[in-house]
Parts: sequence; structure tokens; C-alpha cells
Amino acid sequence: MSTTATEAPRRNGVDVPTLFATLDAVKNQKEIAKFQFRASNTWVSGTHNRSQLSGFYGAMQELQHKQVTTLDADHPAVLVGQDNGPTPIEFVLHAIAACLTSGLANIAAARRVDLHKVTSTVEGDIDLLGLLGLSDGTVRNGYQEIRITFHIEGDADDETLRGLVEQSRKRSAVYDVLTTPTPIVINVITN
Amino acid sequence: MSTTATEAPRRNGVDVPTLFATLDAVKNQKEIAKFQFRASNTWVSGTHNRSQLSGFYGAMQELQHKQVTTLDADHPAVLVGQDNGPTPIEFVLHAIAACLTSGLANIAAARRVDLHKVTSTVEGDIDLLGLLGLSDGTVRNGYQEIRITFHIEGDADDETLRGLVEQSRKRSAVYDVLTTPTPIVINVITN
Repeated sequence: MSTTATEAPRRNGVDVPTLFATLDAVKNQKEIAKFQFRASNTWVSGTHNRSQLSGFYGAMQELQHKQVTTLDADHPAVLVGQDNGPTPIEFVLHAIAACLTSGLANIAAARRVDLHKVTSTVEGDIDLLGLLGLSDGTVRNGYQEIRITFHIEGDADDETLRGLVEQSRKRSAVYDVLTTPTPIVINVITN
Repeated sequence: MSTTATEAPRRNGVDVPTLFATLDAVKNQKEIAKFQFRASNTWVSGTHNRSQLSGFYGAMQELQHKQVTTLDADHPAVLVGQDNGPTPIEFVLHAIAACLTSGLANIAAARRVDLHKVTSTVEGDIDLLGLLGLSDGTVRNGYQEIRITFHIEGDADDETLRGLVEQSRKRSAVYDVLTTPTPIVINVITN
């Protein structure tokens, strides 16, 4: 798929020609697509800790976000924390909503659909008997189910708008890591 | 396990008597353990969108964090975004580091281990050929591997400190949702 001279350069805030040019560049040099994202975390006190997101590797170079993002996490008071930030597992809900929404905007632009408004709400059900070690092993530690509801307004019919979400789901990095097992390697260096 | 009169009320910033009292309360009324976390997200422009984390359900009541957390997500310039925030998938790296670290502090306190310093770095390898639709289906959309390295200083031997991380992993909600498939239901409401 390629752009034409008559195509609007931006649709939904997406630079469509550059998006297609980027896809073409990756097709021609697949090494460009190898990325590594990173976070560093420091324990503050109790269940309170803080991460920074800044540098990453991609497009065959070391890169930096234009700003460092600092994220606090804690447990709420009802879970014996000081509530200095969201619970770690809540960030997963932001991640899935954000990933599907970012993808949706790109896909809509590629399909020449003008979006007016996209909002979503996410719920994650979790039974803490699992992570508290109080179940007989039948209750999982994490979410039993995540539900996300999108409200989408755009210049397209219902089927087309639903198709944007479905395509975004199919190409979502966060959807994938939550629904398909992801290998996690943990190393520990002490004292 | 129960606390004694000689136990320090706080260790590592963790209110240990309240932690054990909470475990006892949940044992006696398992309904307390049913939680629901929530996020709401609004598309801003292009791949830029913003979530808010505020209310949740738990301990048989509607609860609010003491502050609303607003999180921006975007794609970086190299991925044709405006870099108004971290990439959605980067929040997953914060979530896993934060979850393991929060758990580690609680477990250390319960095991009477004084921690001095805990830091971690997380790396997630992702090949964008998957989510760009440029692989033949063999490259996954999400992280191919996540690696986390902990540096822990505390008043205990190497084996004991490593044991804290291992126990935290076993009880981690985020580790679980990443390593074991989590059902995600997507609803769409249009125009």
C-alpha cells in the first residue's frame, strides 16, 4: 500500500505519508524493527517504589524519549500501603487501553477514516486470595479477566469502526503479552 | 503466622502487625479479597492518549486512591508519534518491576529481613515486524523476552535475599498476567 499525492498528509493527527514510508523502510531493512525498551526502578519504602522510563534502542540506534517519565507505584491503604501511586497491576490496564487506542488511530488514518472521539474504560477483576497465598492454588495471582469498552465516534459505519478495533487488537503488543505467555528472566545480585 | 509484642511495628516501611492482621481478616472473610481495578482512557491525537487511574473496588467497598494518576502514552518520533509519553508497552516494564519490588518489601518485612537498598533494571526485546504486519506470522507482536535484574542490599545472606525475590515472583500479580494467558474481553460502542 502506498500514499498518493492527493492523500491528506495528516489524518487523526497521524502523519500518514511518513507512516507508510516507515513501513516501506522496515520492509527493506528488517533490522530497523528490532527494539528494546527499558525501565529502571528504585525501592522507596514499604510497597512504594518508583520507575523511570527514558532510553531505548530501536531503528539501529540508542534513542531517548524527549522527556524522562517517572512513575510511582504503591499499594493502597486497604492493602497496607501508603497509596503513593497506583498499584503495579493498575498500570497494565493503562497499557492495554493505550496500546489499542494508539493502534486504532494509526489504522483509522491508514484506512482514511476520520475519528472524532475515542474513549475507553478498562476493568480488571482480581481475587487477592491468590497472591496472598490464601487459596488452595486454584485462584490465580493476576487478573481473572480484563474487560475494555471502547466508545468510538468517527466518519464511518459501525462495521468499519469495529473493524479498526479488531485490527488494532490483532497488532497490539500489550494484548499479545497479556494473552500469550511472555518469557521473563529474573537475575538477582546481592550485597 | 502471627506477630508478637516484641516485633518491630514497622520494618522496611511496612506496617507488619497490620499486614498480618489483614491476612487474618481475609482468611476469615474471603469476600474482602475480591478487587476490581479500573482505568479510563481518552484519545488525544495520533498515537497520543491519556489514562486516569482513580477509583477501584476492594474490601467490599468502592474506594478511591488519595490522588488521581494521569498517564500519557504515545509512540516515539521514530515510530511516527509525537513522543508525548512512553510507548504503551513500556508501562508493562514498570508494572513488573514495581510489582516484584512491592512484594519483596512485604515479604522481607514478614521474614524479619531489613532491606537497605533495592533497585532493578528491566529490558524488553521486541521485534516490530510482528505488530507492523511485516513478518510471516512467526514474530509475535509483544516482547520476545523480558529480563529484570535486581540489586539488593540487606541484612541477610545471599540465599535469603534471593529467596525474597523468588517468593515475590511466586505471588506477583503482574508476573502472572504476563506469563499465564489472561482473558481480555473487548466491547465496542460506536457513534
